[in-house]
Amino acid sequence: MTPEQAGAFLTVDLNKIANNWRKMQAKVGDKRQVAAVLKTDAYGLGAERVGRALYEAGCRVFFTAYVFEGIALREVAPEADIYVLHGVLPHTELDFLKYNLIPVLSTPRQVADWNHLGHKEDIVLPAALHVDTGMTRLGLTAGQIDSLGKNPDQCKYLNVKLVVSHLACADDPDNGMNAEQLEKFETACAKLRRILPDDFKESLSATDGCRLDDERFYRDVVRPGIALYDGALSLEVKILQIQDVQVGQTVGYGATHIFTKKSRVATLGIGYGDGLPRSLSNKGYVLIAGHQAPIVGRISMDLTTVDVTDIDVKELQQAPMAEIFGEDLPLKDVANIAGTIDYEMLTNLSKRFFRIYLD
Amino acid sequence: MTPEQAGAFLTVDLNKIANNWRKMQAKVGDKRQVAAVLKTDAYGLGAERVGRALYEAGCRVFFTAYVFEGIALREVAPEADIYVLHGVLPHTELDFLKYNLIPVLSTPRQVADWNHLGHKEDIVLPAALHVDTGMTRLGLTAGQIDSLGKNPDQCKYLNVKLVVSHLACADDPDNGMNAEQLEKFETACAKLRRILPDDFKESLSATDGCRLDDERFYRDVVRPGIALYDGALSLEVKILQIQDVQVGQTVGYGATHIFTKKSRVATLGIGYGDGLPRSLSNKGYVLIAGHQAPIVGRISMDLTTVDVTDIDVKELQQAPMAEIFGEDLPLKDVANIAGTIDYEMLTNLSKRFFRIYLD
Repeated sequence: MTPEQAGAFLTVDLNKIANNWRKMQAKVGDKRQVAAVLKTDAYGLGAERVGRALYEAGCRVFFTAYVFEGIALREVAPEADIYVLHGVLPHTELDFLKYNLIPVLSTPRQVADWNHLGHKEDIVLPAALHVDTGMTRLGLTAGQIDSLGKNPDQCKYLNVKLVVSHLACADDPDNGMNAEQLEKFETACAKLRRILPDDFKESLSATDGCRLDDERFYRDVVRPGIALYDGALSLEVKILQIQDVQVGQTVGYGATHIFTKKSRVATLGIGYGDGLPRSLSNKGYVLIAGHQAPIVGRISMDLTTVDVTDIDVKELQQAPMAEIFGEDLPLKDVANIAGTIDYEMLTNLSKRFFRIYLD
Repeated sequence: MTPEQAGAFLTVDLNKIANNWRKMQAKVGDKRQVAAVLKTDAYGLGAERVGRALYEAGCRVFFTAYVFEGIALREVAPEADIYVLHGVLPHTELDFLKYNLIPVLSTPRQVADWNHLGHKEDIVLPAALHVDTGMTRLGLTAGQIDSLGKNPDQCKYLNVKLVVSHLACADDPDNGMNAEQLEKFETACAKLRRILPDDFKESLSATDGCRLDDERFYRDVVRPGIALYDGALSLEVKILQIQDVQVGQTVGYGATHIFTKKSRVATLGIGYGDGLPRSLSNKGYVLIAGHQAPIVGRISMDLTTVDVTDIDVKELQQAPMAEIFGEDLPLKDVANIAGTIDYEMLTNLSKRFFRIYLD
């Protein structure tokens, strides 16, 4: 795809991403590490480009969800610790060994299998352990850790480098669950120190946890995801057609918007098929030449219509593009209007956009 | 990505897709053509695979949104008419000529520019015209067609093969707008027959229009999109972890679901980062061993938790996968629970799935 052929342009400012990472490193201090969570193709932004930029900035700890994401990242981060959060799916053991990836083990079975492989090959295998402190999603329960304590041989061939958990309510600093999870995490780590042959680092906080003021949540390794992209993204789209419409005319599927005065409509080269949430239909707005243009009618798969009646025609004619989100229209606000979160919007972003990486 | 490395499997039954196409061809009759709308990478299913299957079934008319989608399709559909709905974006003219793609022209400016190119090169260029009959999205207005009539030289170097419009409310057969649009379309085509040097075919109906009983909506070419995939798709996901939970325990971000009895939770390798709508949180369900397992807690980026308390443990242990949608749980129903439409769900589907094409 060339820029001429494309309907929309996603700009990813790699310098800003690297700066965001450096600022977080400065905030948590030299004794701690700031990792980067680059799963889901770096939230749809391109894990290889983002990973390379962060590696060059000095980041040496990465997290992915799947082993194939870790394999792709290894190419741009040759000397980093790459943790795979979903652990060792059956028959992927050799991928971990070949690319020196570290599985985050979440179940007694995964621990036993990984240890068994170490035993069989007579090598100590690197690993992380996921402990569940309240997400009820992945991770060893307190009871499962106790069981492990009764059979410490199950960890004999493991070099557990990191113990990981995940906060459920860190976006709400006053939520009592944060302190509860911290206490459970500390208890779990204390138990594991008595069970495991080697010492390990601790990691509890992702983006929201990094934003908490209480340093106890930072532990040894913080794992920001979306926080890396603050101010680094913008999405602009071509205006394909502008037309004048009459009173009583409707627009889009279902004819959900009726024009009650003579109006002007611009049609944009983006739709829900590109990841623009359909729930923005008749609710959201875009920016054209700095002015708000409300979305009118339902968003189609490839097209979105906006009301540009109040924008000066000359300004309109000189504006080849509309901003979907960016400096003057934060992604978070757009996601909020759509009834979702910026994470979901980002990961749905289309492969159809032409991507511009600033570095 | 290997099947072992993947979290989820999207199965695309190419035979069923080809059969759906054949059934539609039988329905509309030999005198009409059934095209295939393969924009947005065939709604996220892989335009090259789907396109090849339909081409082999006999489909000779395709629609894409962008020229780069047409270029990709040309490889698998060497002898087909490929129409590009977004028309000629500036500086993409040579792409159309090189790959023999037909632009659907939507504005007087696009018509003039395409005609001008024909004049300059002294060749007659194939084209389609988009006329707006009520979508207020893309297409020439009645007034613009009248203007064209006053300067028929503007079409002298065009071979308009097809005139296209699009119904706004065809999902509602009783909606009066269908008849209104049909009338406007017939009027526009009659006018254009007086203006254009060559005769042309007509196309008004996409999937919903094809489902209308009134043959007048079929015209010469129907353009099904999602109707091609009826019964042809299924999505299954690996179960990563099963854990017992206590009364009072919560699950997921924001701790939005509290267990009021001893329960069992399965964690699935899919999340909104894979295109599973986050709006299914605490609302949707999946099928495991044929039983419904309700989604509990918020859907995360890479993980979804479901309540499997009522499923027999043995059945659970023998079921490696959960069905997100498929034969027993139609995509349309899942989209409905999510508050969206099957089109949006399909186009958001992740590149992270391992795709299985049945042919």
